Amino acid sequence: MEKAIVLLSGGIDSATTLSVAKAGGYEIYALSFDYGQRHRVELESARRVAEASGVKKLLVISFNLRDIGGSALTSGMEVPKRGDCGLRVAGKDRQHEPGMNSPAIPVTYVPARNTIFLSFALAWAETVEAADIFIGANAVDYSGYPDCRPEYLKAFENMANLATKASVEGKTKFRIHAPLIKLSKAEIIRKGTALGVDYSLTWSCYDPVRKQGGYIPCLKCDSCRFRAKGFEEAGLKDPLRQL
Amino acid sequence: MEKAIVLLSGGIDSATTLSVAKAGGYEIYALSFDYGQRHRVELESARRVAEASGVKKLLVISFNLRDIGGSALTSGMEVPKRGDCGLRVAGKDRQHEPGMNSPAIPVTYVPARNTIFLSFALAWAETVEAADIFIGANAVDYSGYPDCRPEYLKAFENMANLATKASVEGKTKFRIHAPLIKLSKAEIIRKGTALGVDYSLTWSCYDPVRKQGGYIPCLKCDSCRFRAKGFEEAGLKDPLRQL
Repeated sequence: MEKAIVLLSGGIDSATTLSVAKAGGYEIYALSFDYGQRHRVELESARRVAEASGVKKLLVISFNLRDIGGSALTSGMEVPKRGDCGLRVAGKDRQHEPGMNSPAIPVTYVPARNTIFLSFALAWAETVEAADIFIGANAVDYSGYPDCRPEYLKAFENMANLATKASVEGKTKFRIHAPLIKLSKAEIIRKGTALGVDYSLTWSCYDPVRKQGGYIPCLKCDSCRFRAKGFEEAGLKDPLRQL
Repeated sequence: MEKAIVLLSGGIDSATTLSVAKAGGYEIYALSFDYGQRHRVELESARRVAEASGVKKLLVISFNLRDIGGSALTSGMEVPKRGDCGLRVAGKDRQHEPGMNSPAIPVTYVPARNTIFLSFALAWAETVEAADIFIGANAVDYSGYPDCRPEYLKAFENMANLATKASVEGKTKFRIHAPLIKLSKAEIIRKGTALGVDYSLTWSCYDPVRKQGGYIPCLKCDSCRFRAKGFEEAGLKDPLRQL
């Protein structure tokens, strides 16, 4: 049985990607990151999804991207909410920082995040002798992140095959798979539903609200909005909203 | 003043690279990693080198590569010593693992290490608005690591310029500098000496020996041997050996 590393955040896209890899016959090594994200509650979802999917192993790697910052997800910047057009930046001093107010890439962008994630995935792939790495990157209903585009993923794959002992010795050709790259959020949800993904286990919200000892989604951030739009367009109800 | 990120392990190569970047007029952001390496004593050297060099900031990022393993530096495998030809692998069960006994790449190779390091460097570069990343990679007197070769570094640079908001928006073209890539260890030591590097602050040994509450180099591992050979060929005495 071929092994695959699957990046698993606990959101809709990564849960669906895991189900696609599993349907492809791979033994799954799921990889999650505790990087100081403000929505760390997603890690609990990653654990639940991994468990429900019967993965071979779930590895959570911890490091602190708050020391680097540069994102609303890892610093004191506010997460933009509905009505802000995704452009609001917290704090007067940041208002005129070049590039921060770009309409194309919102402040929830985390510098080099997928590059860091894929680098750890590559290290683990080499160690467990897997050639295939799956990532839930999506270039349609996404937030405009540069590290979710096909040309970026191709460049990472090219680099990976020059970086490692396994590739240089001709033993392994690493492949980066992004099976959702051209799907809309609605198409992703339909595909995952067909593959039996339990979306009640997933988490999307960037800015969770504490309630009764737990968390509920804010329903206003980009990620909540993409999720709601996806379920609506798929003609399905979000099971997380029914709990 | 332009900023540069410098990967700083605390060894000869990274200390020399830092001095080259400094001589180039950059304001230095030094980046070190506590990744579970058995020679973690090198981190103290990194701190000393950073302090002696007057860097703007030293950031140490922690994560645990022991969870991934696959290297004598991050697992129970023994570090090869003089007479082993760099081929010994600890534990009977590993003796026949494919690729592990390659004469070209020794067991001190850490899967995707430079890729992980450079990914964090890229994240920090984007956040502090630096375009230049320096790494002490060397393809001459080195250990045969694939992620120390020019073609790998070029591929990383290409990927980096597709990965980030700063590059995609046309604000920054990231450059990976490896000023020692074609130098022998002796040439590196001569260059650093000319630039005023205090090599007594640096650390090379992969397998330090505890002595009198501190550590001394084993003088038998590859890294100790490259260091000794370098000083010998440079016609200089290793100040660390005179302490």
